[in-house]
Amino acid sequence: MQETLNYISENKKRYLDELFELLKIASISADPAYKDEVLKCAEVCADHLRNAGADEVEVCKTKGYPVVYGEKMVGKDLPTVLVYGHYDVQPPDPLELWTKPPFEPYVEKTDLHPDGAVFARGAADDKGQFFMHIKAFEAMMKTDSLPCNVKFIIEGEEEVGSKSLGDFVNEYKEKLSCDCILISDTSLYSTEQPTVTTGLRGLSYVEVEVEGPNRDLHSGLYGGAVPNPIHVLSRMIAGLIDENGHITIDGFYDNVEEVPAEERAQMNKLKDDQEAFKSSIGLSGVEGEKGFTTLERTSIRPTLDCNGIWGGYTGEGAKTVIPSKAFAKISMRLVPYQTPEEITGKFTKYFEKIAPANVKVKVNPHHGGMPYVLPSDTKEFNAAKKAMETAFGTEVLPFRSGGSIPITAMFEEVLGAKSVLMGFGLASDAIHSPNEHYGLYNFYKGIESIPLFFKNYAGR
Amino acid sequence: MQETLNYISENKKRYLDELFELLKIASISADPAYKDEVLKCAEVCADHLRNAGADEVEVCKTKGYPVVYGEKMVGKDLPTVLVYGHYDVQPPDPLELWTKPPFEPYVEKTDLHPDGAVFARGAADDKGQFFMHIKAFEAMMKTDSLPCNVKFIIEGEEEVGSKSLGDFVNEYKEKLSCDCILISDTSLYSTEQPTVTTGLRGLSYVEVEVEGPNRDLHSGLYGGAVPNPIHVLSRMIAGLIDENGHITIDGFYDNVEEVPAEERAQMNKLKDDQEAFKSSIGLSGVEGEKGFTTLERTSIRPTLDCNGIWGGYTGEGAKTVIPSKAFAKISMRLVPYQTPEEITGKFTKYFEKIAPANVKVKVNPHHGGMPYVLPSDTKEFNAAKKAMETAFGTEVLPFRSGGSIPITAMFEEVLGAKSVLMGFGLASDAIHSPNEHYGLYNFYKGIESIPLFFKNYAGR
Repeated sequence: MQETLNYISENKKRYLDELFELLKIASISADPAYKDEVLKCAEVCADHLRNAGADEVEVCKTKGYPVVYGEKMVGKDLPTVLVYGHYDVQPPDPLELWTKPPFEPYVEKTDLHPDGAVFARGAADDKGQFFMHIKAFEAMMKTDSLPCNVKFIIEGEEEVGSKSLGDFVNEYKEKLSCDCILISDTSLYSTEQPTVTTGLRGLSYVEVEVEGPNRDLHSGLYGGAVPNPIHVLSRMIAGLIDENGHITIDGFYDNVEEVPAEERAQMNKLKDDQEAFKSSIGLSGVEGEKGFTTLERTSIRPTLDCNGIWGGYTGEGAKTVIPSKAFAKISMRLVPYQTPEEITGKFTKYFEKIAPANVKVKVNPHHGGMPYVLPSDTKEFNAAKKAMETAFGTEVLPFRSGGSIPITAMFEEVLGAKSVLMGFGLASDAIHSPNEHYGLYNFYKGIESIPLFFKNYAGR
Repeated sequence: MQETLNYISENKKRYLDELFELLKIASISADPAYKDEVLKCAEVCADHLRNAGADEVEVCKTKGYPVVYGEKMVGKDLPTVLVYGHYDVQPPDPLELWTKPPFEPYVEKTDLHPDGAVFARGAADDKGQFFMHIKAFEAMMKTDSLPCNVKFIIEGEEEVGSKSLGDFVNEYKEKLSCDCILISDTSLYSTEQPTVTTGLRGLSYVEVEVEGPNRDLHSGLYGGAVPNPIHVLSRMIAGLIDENGHITIDGFYDNVEEVPAEERAQMNKLKDDQEAFKSSIGLSGVEGEKGFTTLERTSIRPTLDCNGIWGGYTGEGAKTVIPSKAFAKISMRLVPYQTPEEITGKFTKYFEKIAPANVKVKVNPHHGGMPYVLPSDTKEFNAAKKAMETAFGTEVLPFRSGGSIPITAMFEEVLGAKSVLMGFGLASDAIHSPNEHYGLYNFYKGIESIPLFFKNYAGR
């Protein structure tokens, strides 16, 4: 193992240079204008896998963006780890809030990253994280220390709901057979308090439309006498959450897991500095569901957020219009045992129910995802915990994250294997936001932890 | 007079061709990208005035877009009519809802315009209407029948609040001295029931901003624990109007004119076909302030409308973000004796008051305008009524419009003269909307009515 860690240490500079090149590719899967960049990114990932020593490397076609595959089989009787990552990134807008362009990576120190952090869209989510696996794999190959079989799948549609991955995994079920799945696409609780993620929330995402008059109207001639779709939509959104922070959708909480008091107590032992939390995002006060802490609100409770709203005149200056339509994007984070089908259905029914009779509403479901839990008494969890404890030199705790990686549930169903969520980002890394970044310390600790995980998991 | 009307009749085709050329100029004052087009439009208007026979024609510089001036003085002792119009137009978006491009005029028949209507941005508001005055003036000049003095001011900032006009009128107060102001920038109640507009609503227009966290956040990691500015803004907008259609702003109705029951009764004698109203804009039901009819809601009552809203991710696909900020444009139509300063102040105070403590709000006032009333027992009203009765061959009634022409109050204050609102559009002309149009019948009836107004007003 020491030889592998030495190799990693000697190649740190090159690893970072290679990550920079990967981050320069604007692989925005949500925006069709970036199609060529997404496709180019897949090819670059395949090259990296080949160069690291993987066999059978292939850019596998799907109905959407391709999945990059590679493997190294070292022994039929050894366990197989399937590494999952995604090479696509979130749209970078609003562009004007980035200090430097989102696809021109650079390193800068921050309070939380005194060794520096790489700033770029995708730095933490997920290029910087899946790239750790390719580099750790390279180190194991070069030092002849890969203790078990490894397979890689790196997809290009995670940020748009992994639309093609289910078909792909079902089609290549045999090829992808494995004992566990290893994913780095989550965060540590903090650099000082490393964690393995044992829970993820699910997702239901819809786009809604409210239509009032059949054309835009002059607000002077019609104002005050017709339903204004912006007002109607505002009232409807306002009505989705009550004054106690409860979501009002009929039956929304029916299937929500009641987390045992004991687990809640343990969870709340994590150092939860509310002042630091608030000041990190410039807030004077938090809010949320009554009866739960911030940590609980963002992990074991389902939530509803409007992610976008638009309607009417949004350009410079003033236009006195009553628009025909107003729109919003609304997402709900789900917890065990909610399902996206159930919640999208309940949302749609409720949204149609609360709509006034003189407007038309439409609800268009986007992608959804199941919530996920990895029990902390599993071999997978413990291999990760021990690996990170060695790398970080401190105790590692289980932690439930508020985010979603909808494919973990699908992996379990199709491949019959548990996912280990061994992520190294920080919540403050601004993923999905301007100035996304990923700490160099985290990047290198991740690369060190991975061979240790393989060793622990293979038991050799 | 017959000679003048004959001249108009003989030149109908050319008048329309010239209007087409004017409508091809994309003089969008709200969008700085169209600056050159706006300036070009001013020059074209000046050429038209010169060619029609005006003296002292000048494109007068202001801090913003220029005001086009021209005059014809025929006798020191004769009354002077100041004709006002505006050559700028509203932004045409949403472009995709136009049948043909907004600056490529064409004629097509509609149910309400069996003789055809010109379709183009600015067709009714206000190019097609102020151009009637230049053409009527040309007809009077060519037939040597101008009965009194006339001055023209055609501005280029009406759609953005006539920002420079006040300074201009104050500076050229002597040059602009007149006995009345004649404006065609309003609508008839219907082609069958011509009206002279005796009231206009004022305007208060603000842009609001709600800031929650100081950066965009991942809705999975932060959702449910922080104020989402879209939700906060939605709740605030929802709270501005109560379930009875009343605006909740403290003191909003303090100075509202209580229109006498008699005037309300007379107003409601106008044929008000609610079914036709609803079907013309595709609505199954109207709504508004309790205790008032649609006609009253859009004329004698103040209103509040959200004209635009935006925040978060509004592109294609799904992005799970909690935005840092959300925005809206909100306008209020005012009635006598509200003032924009009063209402903008009350709005700001109230909006700040209802904001939750954990967000920051900003209210940026845009332009405002005073409400206006022209009593129906004035010489000005009666000259217009009689002119239109001759042209249309039917009784003409007074009518209060819901729209705003904020400069009428300023004219009265600075020039000491009343404005006559002799407009020839229809409410259904889709001004400020896609497929704006102006009936050819209305255009020609307008050109005929104008020399008749001059004759009646000059008394010779």
